[in-house]
Parts: sequence; structure tokens; C-alpha cells
Amino acid sequence: MSKAYDSMSKDELENELKVVQKKYDEYKALGLKLDMSRGKPAPAQIELSLPMMDVLNSSSDYMSIVDTRNYGIADGIPEAKKLIADILEVDPSEVIVCGNSSLNIMFDVVSKAMNKGIMGETPWGKQSKVKFLCPVPGYDRHFAILQYFGIEMINVPMKEDGPDMDMVEEYVNNDSEVKGIWCVPKYANPTGISYSDEVVKRFAALKPAAKDFRIFWDNAYCIHDFYEDNQDKILPILSECKKQGNDDLVYMFCSTSKVTFPGAGIAALATSEANVKDYMSQLKWQTIGFDKINMLRHARFFGDVNGVKKHMMKHAALIRPKFEIVLKTLEKELGGLGIGKWTNPIGGYFISFDSLDGCAKEIVKTAKEAGVVMTGAGATYPYGKDPKDSNIRIAPTYPTEEELQKACDLFAVCVKLVSLKKLLAK
Amino acid sequence: MSKAYDSMSKDELENELKVVQKKYDEYKALGLKLDMSRGKPAPAQIELSLPMMDVLNSSSDYMSIVDTRNYGIADGIPEAKKLIADILEVDPSEVIVCGNSSLNIMFDVVSKAMNKGIMGETPWGKQSKVKFLCPVPGYDRHFAILQYFGIEMINVPMKEDGPDMDMVEEYVNNDSEVKGIWCVPKYANPTGISYSDEVVKRFAALKPAAKDFRIFWDNAYCIHDFYEDNQDKILPILSECKKQGNDDLVYMFCSTSKVTFPGAGIAALATSEANVKDYMSQLKWQTIGFDKINMLRHARFFGDVNGVKKHMMKHAALIRPKFEIVLKTLEKELGGLGIGKWTNPIGGYFISFDSLDGCAKEIVKTAKEAGVVMTGAGATYPYGKDPKDSNIRIAPTYPTEEELQKACDLFAVCVKLVSLKKLLAK
Repeated sequence: MSKAYDSMSKDELENELKVVQKKYDEYKALGLKLDMSRGKPAPAQIELSLPMMDVLNSSSDYMSIVDTRNYGIADGIPEAKKLIADILEVDPSEVIVCGNSSLNIMFDVVSKAMNKGIMGETPWGKQSKVKFLCPVPGYDRHFAILQYFGIEMINVPMKEDGPDMDMVEEYVNNDSEVKGIWCVPKYANPTGISYSDEVVKRFAALKPAAKDFRIFWDNAYCIHDFYEDNQDKILPILSECKKQGNDDLVYMFCSTSKVTFPGAGIAALATSEANVKDYMSQLKWQTIGFDKINMLRHARFFGDVNGVKKHMMKHAALIRPKFEIVLKTLEKELGGLGIGKWTNPIGGYFISFDSLDGCAKEIVKTAKEAGVVMTGAGATYPYGKDPKDSNIRIAPTYPTEEELQKACDLFAVCVKLVSLKKLLAK
Repeated sequence: MSKAYDSMSKDELENELKVVQKKYDEYKALGLKLDMSRGKPAPAQIELSLPMMDVLNSSSDYMSIVDTRNYGIADGIPEAKKLIADILEVDPSEVIVCGNSSLNIMFDVVSKAMNKGIMGETPWGKQSKVKFLCPVPGYDRHFAILQYFGIEMINVPMKEDGPDMDMVEEYVNNDSEVKGIWCVPKYANPTGISYSDEVVKRFAALKPAAKDFRIFWDNAYCIHDFYEDNQDKILPILSECKKQGNDDLVYMFCSTSKVTFPGAGIAALATSEANVKDYMSQLKWQTIGFDKINMLRHARFFGDVNGVKKHMMKHAALIRPKFEIVLKTLEKELGGLGIGKWTNPIGGYFISFDSLDGCAKEIVKTAKEAGVVMTGAGATYPYGKDPKDSNIRIAPTYPTEEELQKACDLFAVCVKLVSLKKLLAK
């Protein structure tokens, strides 16, 4: 085990800095060009879904309850609703299958709440103030939607098993200006943790001060497990809400972007039948229907939810070794140094790294100067402002294993370099 | 030639009524179930695009400037931009290729103007009043978007060659609350007329009182001609606007919904580069990208704009006979009676029928009671209110020729029946 930096003398730190600086300069000279910034499937993962492109051709039968090639059905074909319902553990009547992007649906739900209000309540855009709770660190694109609409964001710390529920309850149950909270309940972005049963139950039992408060439950990684026999399980929030008489409390989102093809998958909203009705009453002005051929393609390819889960294990076989590379490298290079902590998820797309306070921006910058792009420091916080400047999101999926190893080695060097400078400047 | 109803005596009218009523009752007894309500391609038209479903399979090359199967490119792949640009006679840099629905894009453009404003102007939603000009009769879904957002609609009469431009200029150039106008410039919905060069030029030369006024140019039927050698040509509005120094005046919309598959086509926004930039600065919060695989499928299937035009002639061969059935039947059954006028378009999806004042609703109702569904009377006017209650939209494409003949025969009977009752009640 290496000696922790904070137990080193100034001389030891300075010697270590020389060694690390030399290593960094050597990496820089390599002219690397690597990207660990976004949760993007690798080309090999994309290949897994190629057989789906043979499911429909010019001789296929395109009939669902209607001809999927013509107009009609704004809320998705039954085959696709059933598939999504089984993935999310809800009833098909609680599902609207939309276009290719769950982000787009989330934006649209917020947009509708702003413009028309939820279930007849005053539109958020006409209320004097609208606030959202944002568990941090979280997903930058969630925060961006709120920032776009001028919704105030309140940081809520993430704990080992979900957001700080004392704080969530305090805000939601007392402040009628609080209208929503972003959640990524399973393999959260970026921490990779999953919500405990207790957390889900406390969510379901909220007594919001605002009638138009909703939980925005982005179940982006609901089936994105790494292991067949070691998976996080989260309670189905919709059922839990019903048990509490809170039927309409939650909007769930998911997509097949990281199941089949990012950009050419299907995405869905799942929520109570009353919320479905409220949403559809507005959606009908906006579209005659989404791409039903692509829905049919997905439904036929997978057959049922077991087909999806089997397919996800193929992804797992490609992703797992990459997470192992990152975790092993972090442990080997930084373990015991006391200059970083990181999460060890068993699913999802991210590892969350916390550096010494005030170092994250500099680490990301230093890595970039040597050719390794990380998610921008601060991106995991509303307004891009990480109050401690310590969180860095690591996205291991896209690079090859060889590239990833190099990127991680360099990243560890950058963490050391910036931490040493920080400690020496004290 | 039949005798005009308004030159008949009361006795003659009453005798005619008996004959017509008997015919109507006979039709009613047939228990027809026919639909002439929506501009929906017939199954035979859908079949025309089936070969497109063989363009991409599991062995295909999916590379554009990026892998179309993965994330990236929010504004569409170059191949699709080029195709749309050539259809709309604009530059690819002036095109954003989106999802499957141009209606969705129109809704989104209005939504963005409401929430964030156009090019830094005050959001429409925060201005005391926002008005749109609506050439009438027009497209019900255009009006529905405005109604959804609470935008006031002002009727502008359609003439033989486009909207009443004196009225348009008067409003747009003097009233800063007027922010937009809906146009379907070629084979308009529902009249089927196309804008003359003079009309397009006067549009391009508008001097709007509002900086954030835009022309919403829904070029839905831009390539939907019935004949190879007899086509309406409209001036390219974007070039005309540039000549007038009005570069940013127009948003154009189109889709392949009635070219390939309704619901599984591609749709686009075309506008000045400055407008593109303004729109993309907002779109980026909403989506990571649209379905690039479907864009590639379309681009590869057609090759270029000539491929599209060739394909459209196959549609024409199926649609033309249907329009002929309607027009021949109207002429044969109603010609010279003085109880209806109708348009005779050479492209598009609709024939517009004007009954005697105060008869449209009753005609549609009477037809429905005998099993023939027409577009709801009034639908072609904002708020569903046709001030004269005379306009009926006829959509001949979906039924088979045999069905269509029956539906038209019945429609003519209904027009006679309702008109006779109206004349007798005077």
C-alpha cells in the first residue's frame, strides 16, 4: 500500500511531484486522443443489435392493430407498450411509447407543465417561482432542461442508497414552489448507486405541498446490469405510489438508446393512467404519431422482456471488463493515497470520482492537455457549479480496452499531479 | 345540364326533395362505412416505398460523417440535409433534419418562441398579446397549435392565387402583435391552389412591425404533383426573402410522410442560417439527435432529388384517378345546380367544397349518418368556426376507387338534400 499523501513531509511531496510530473510529461508527449466524457456505447456494443436490422424488410408483415406504416396511434403500438411495461414493471395502459429519445420526452413533459400546467393546475410558467430538487452529483442534461426553462435548482446530496430523503421530505412536503425532483434510481448517473427500498418507499409516501409536484424518475439504466447473478433491484415506484394513494406522483422515463441503437431506439413515458390521459390530451396537438415501424422492429426483435434481458447480458460482457480496467487502475495507482474516492457500480455507464476539494477542474484540464477528454468538471452539478470542485464523472464504455487503460493511467497521473500541487500550496 | 335549384319553384323543389330523400334513404340502407376525412395515403401508396425497407440490413455500411447507429449530430446527417435542401431549393446549411413529423417541428418552433423568444426577442409567452394570421380555409392542425398556446387567430381569406395579400400586408406591417402566418404555398390544404409569383414576392417583401414575426411556410405538398408535365411551380421563398434583405423572415417545413411512410418518414425545418443557429441553440437541450438510421435509409433509397420526384410520379398514378372520380361525380351530380363550388387541383391531397351558406355542418352530419365520414365541417377554420358554415374538405386518397365512387355519390346526394331543405325553409 502506498503512503497517503497527507502523511508525507513537504520534501516527500516535492520528490513525488517530480516523479509524477515526469510521467505526465511522457504521456503528454504521446499525443493521445482519447475520450471518456460521455456515456456512449462502443462500436462493438452497436454491433450486437445489427440482427434487428433484418427483422423488417420489404416482404414483412407490418400490421399491429393498425398498419404501422401509415398514420395513427399517438401513444405507441401495443407490442411496444407491452415490452416497455414489462421492463418498467408497470401496466401497458400506463405507457406511452414515443420517439427515439427519453431526453426529448423529459424536456417535453417539463415544457407542457410550463405552458399548460399539470392536470389543470396553473402552468408553472405562470407561477411566481418554480423549484426542482436536484440530487447531486447528477446528470447534466437534466439540469440543462431546468436551466432552459428558468426553473430554480436546489442541490440535494446523494447518499449511499439514494438522495438525502430527510431533505427531500422537508422540501417537498412544505414548499409548494417545489414541483419536481430528478431521480436516476438504478445505477445512477454518475454515482452508479441504486436507491434502497427504504428510499423508494419514502419517495412513494411523499405528501407534496404542491398538487402539481411530480417525481421525474429517469430509469435510464433499469436493465443495464453487469452481472446475471449480482444485480441491484429497485422497488417498482409506481406500485409503491399506488399503495400510498399517491397514484399520480411519478413520471418514469426510459429508452432503448443503450439497448439497441442510440438515436434509433424507442423511448417511453410510464405514469399513472390519469397522467397518461393528461399528457395525451396535449400530445395530440403536437404529433399524429411516432415511428411505429421502429416500435414494431424493436418488439419483434426482442419478442419479450426476457429477450431484452438476454441481450443486455451481451452488452454486460463488453462493458464489465472496461469498468474493471478503470477500477483496478484507480485502486492500483491511487489506492491508499488519500487523494480520491470512487464508486464501484455493478451496472450503468459511469464511475463517479471525488478528488480532494478544489482539484476537479484542474484534473480535467490537465488530462485534456495530455489528450484525454473527461466530462467537464462541474457538469454533474446544477449550473455547472460543483461547490467543492471535487466530482469527476468517468465514462468507460466508448474507448477500446487498450485506449481505456492508457486513459486511466493518465487520469491517475493527473489526479496525483494536481493533488500534489494542491497539498504543496497549502 | 340540370336546372339550378334557385330557379326552381317551390313545387319543383319539393318534388326534387322527394326524389333525393328516397336516394338518400337507399344509400343509408346500404350501411356504408367509408372515410374521406383525412389526408392519408392508401395502402397501395404505402407499398410503393417497401423497397426502402431493404436498403439497410445487418450487413450494411452505416457510416455517414459519423456512425448513424450511435449518438451525435443534432441537426441531421449531411446526406439527408442535401436531399431535403434540393427538394426545398435551399442550401443544406439552411436545413435541420429532425424526427418523423413536420407537425411536431412546427409545434416545437412555436413552443420555443413562446418560451424563449425568437433571436433574443421577448418570449411570446411574456408579451401581452400574440396574434397569427390564418388564411382560410386552412389546415386544422395548424390552428390547433395556436389554440393550444392561446395565440389569437385572425382569418385571412384565401384567393385564387394565395392569401389576400392586401390584408396580410396591412396586418403584418402595422401590428407588432402579429407574429406569424400559416401558409401551405403549394396545393394548399384544403383548397389545392398554389401561390402565384406575385404572392410569394409580396410575402418576401413584407416589412413586419414585429422583429420576431415569421412566415410559417408549410411546404407539405411541395413535390406532390399529379402530372409530370402540368405542375404548379412556386417561387423559392427563401431566395426571394434574401433578395429583399429579409433573410430571416421564413421558417419552412416539410416531411416525407406522404412520400415514404406516414409516421416513419423524415421531417425537416429549412430557414436562414441565422435562424438555424438560433433554433439549434435551443434544440441542443432537448435531444442528443434524431433517428439518423432512418435518415440514411431515406437518403440511400432515393439517391437524390430526382429519385424522389420519380417516386412521386408513382404516387400520382394512384392518386390522380381518385381525384378524377371526385371531380367527375361532383360535376355530374351537382354541376349547374348552383348549390356548390369546388376546386380542381393538380396536386396535393384535398379538394375544397363550398356549399350554400349554412349547409356544411348539416351535409357532413347527413353523410355521417349514412356511413361516410368527412372532415368535420368548420375544421378548416380557426376555433372550428366557419363563419359561413359552407366549407367542406374532401380527402380522396385513402378509400379504394370503388369505395370512393360510392362515397362521392352519397356526398352529392347529401349536398342536394341539405340544400333543398335550406331553400325550402327560406
